[in-house]
Amino acid sequence: MNPSATDQFSTLMATAASIGARTETAMRSDLETALTDCDPLLVEVLHYALFNGGKRIRPLLTVLCSRCCGRDDHRLYLLAAAFEYLHVATLAHDDVIDRADQRRGRPSVAARFGTTAAILAGDWLHARSMHLIGRLAGPDGLETFCTATTAMVNGEFAQLRHIADLNTTQHHYFAVIRQKTSNLIASACSIGALYAGADTRQRDALTTYGDRIGAAFQVVDDLLDFKGEAGTIGKKTGNDFIEGKMTLPLLLALDKASSEQRQTMKTLLEGDRSQIEALTRLHNLIEDLDGFNEAARIAHQLIDAALEALAIFSFEEHELKNADQLKELARFILARKK
Amino acid sequence: MNPSATDQFSTLMATAASIGARTETAMRSDLETALTDCDPLLVEVLHYALFNGGKRIRPLLTVLCSRCCGRDDHRLYLLAAAFEYLHVATLAHDDVIDRADQRRGRPSVAARFGTTAAILAGDWLHARSMHLIGRLAGPDGLETFCTATTAMVNGEFAQLRHIADLNTTQHHYFAVIRQKTSNLIASACSIGALYAGADTRQRDALTTYGDRIGAAFQVVDDLLDFKGEAGTIGKKTGNDFIEGKMTLPLLLALDKASSEQRQTMKTLLEGDRSQIEALTRLHNLIEDLDGFNEAARIAHQLIDAALEALAIFSFEEHELKNADQLKELARFILARKK
Repeated sequence: MNPSATDQFSTLMATAASIGARTETAMRSDLETALTDCDPLLVEVLHYALFNGGKRIRPLLTVLCSRCCGRDDHRLYLLAAAFEYLHVATLAHDDVIDRADQRRGRPSVAARFGTTAAILAGDWLHARSMHLIGRLAGPDGLETFCTATTAMVNGEFAQLRHIADLNTTQHHYFAVIRQKTSNLIASACSIGALYAGADTRQRDALTTYGDRIGAAFQVVDDLLDFKGEAGTIGKKTGNDFIEGKMTLPLLLALDKASSEQRQTMKTLLEGDRSQIEALTRLHNLIEDLDGFNEAARIAHQLIDAALEALAIFSFEEHELKNADQLKELARFILARKK
Repeated sequence: MNPSATDQFSTLMATAASIGARTETAMRSDLETALTDCDPLLVEVLHYALFNGGKRIRPLLTVLCSRCCGRDDHRLYLLAAAFEYLHVATLAHDDVIDRADQRRGRPSVAARFGTTAAILAGDWLHARSMHLIGRLAGPDGLETFCTATTAMVNGEFAQLRHIADLNTTQHHYFAVIRQKTSNLIASACSIGALYAGADTRQRDALTTYGDRIGAAFQVVDDLLDFKGEAGTIGKKTGNDFIEGKMTLPLLLALDKASSEQRQTMKTLLEGDRSQIEALTRLHNLIEDLDGFNEAARIAHQLIDAALEALAIFSFEEHELKNADQLKELARFILARKK
């Protein structure tokens, strides 16, 4: 990194910390209002679920996109909080579905408080997020938000259907990650723009930006699941393989595989995926077939497309300044090691 | 029943069937739109969950309340469908939480399609219901709806806290059933009125009506859990006792119990509640202490209060006609045997 890149990164980190803190303040204040006279266990579960050292990336996007379009006021942080509520609701339900004991290095909500509490707390956060979106971003915002949440469920179903399925196509892969991840990232951007009263061109640009970084985020996640080291990645490496997820490096390798290599991969995918030897063999095959490099190239292309979408924000000072931060965030997604 | 009462009941049943059918048409059409290009398993799960011979009581309330305030158009049935979506979402999650295999005499969504599908389908329906409410009933409607859904979660937590707890008060009991049941019934009424552009007095009256019949519904449910017979009640009698729920007949009996009787009840509640002998002994004690009759009297009072709230709808023909049906529905709740 040259000094200027380091500076940009430091600026982004400082902004992220500040927006994260303001979002957390908004969440605490909202919970206080919404949970008046509520059951103490519900209060405890929600606080446990929400205040866990999360990176608050979705709120960061909402705030930066609104600022980029010229609006920044205290209600913006409550709007941003709605995206964190939804995200945490999703995690609470995911951990029940995946029977995951750990989340961010401590017991998951399901492990700590039980399945019932995790499902119900997820439902509470889900309802509250839509309440806030409807109130702060109006019918248009609610439409965007709910479309993204229903699509997310569809993406989960579509993924289930293709577990360990060698016939999964790249088209299908991108359709699923769009539904599962990018749509909601894009909606955090789009609704931030909507809140600021952005015109269609601005809103579309930020939606594209969100869509592309969301997809890149997922591709990098796929890579980290193979490449990361325990302690760095925060969850056990090889998880996706164990679950039979058809990740991008794997799909790209399959595209280039000889029929013999394809047969080997099929055997590995349909065998006991919990064996470290199986993971290592698959890893080496993907490496040989350039699957990791190719996936990294695609992530790069997605980030380039995200940066390009921001080109229209180049006139006013607030546009330039906030678009720069969004660009830096996109580059960070590409460079992240965990 | 005198002939006139029979006539009123027949009229209500015919209305309920017609509104139920129109709501189902609205649901099918909405699903077709919302599920375009969606995963076939998601489509199957949602249809299985939604079209199960449900009584469609919540949609019936929304439609009758809107009609009572002078509006009836085709979008009303889509608004009504939102309440059925939410109801079915709740059932899908409840069956995961309670590990219930059966729902309406066939496998529950969780039993048929697995926990993952049940949680995700519930999330889909939850999101879609809020989407529809926001679109059709505006921010006021969404506020009412989301407040009711978050309160429902709080009610579940509060109920968990008081499992087999002899110190549960009637105040607590009614607070919980209000949160768990009546608030949402009241919101189905209130949002129907809102949709029709009702004035505050009308909306308040219908909210009160919904609140009281919702509470009465739950009290009757408590009675049926003790009194119903398998095959009539649709679920095994004594379920509430097995789960340690502090039902109203039990609370009323505890109020009158001698310290010896109280001790017996404590022993039964803290012992093996799955024993039919335990249920029988508790049943007899509650009978001796007039708990069932007293609970039935309270249900009556609640229904009287519901009927009284409707007194303001006595001028226009559409008021009289639809309020009559709402009254008949209230009386039906009291008389129901399953």
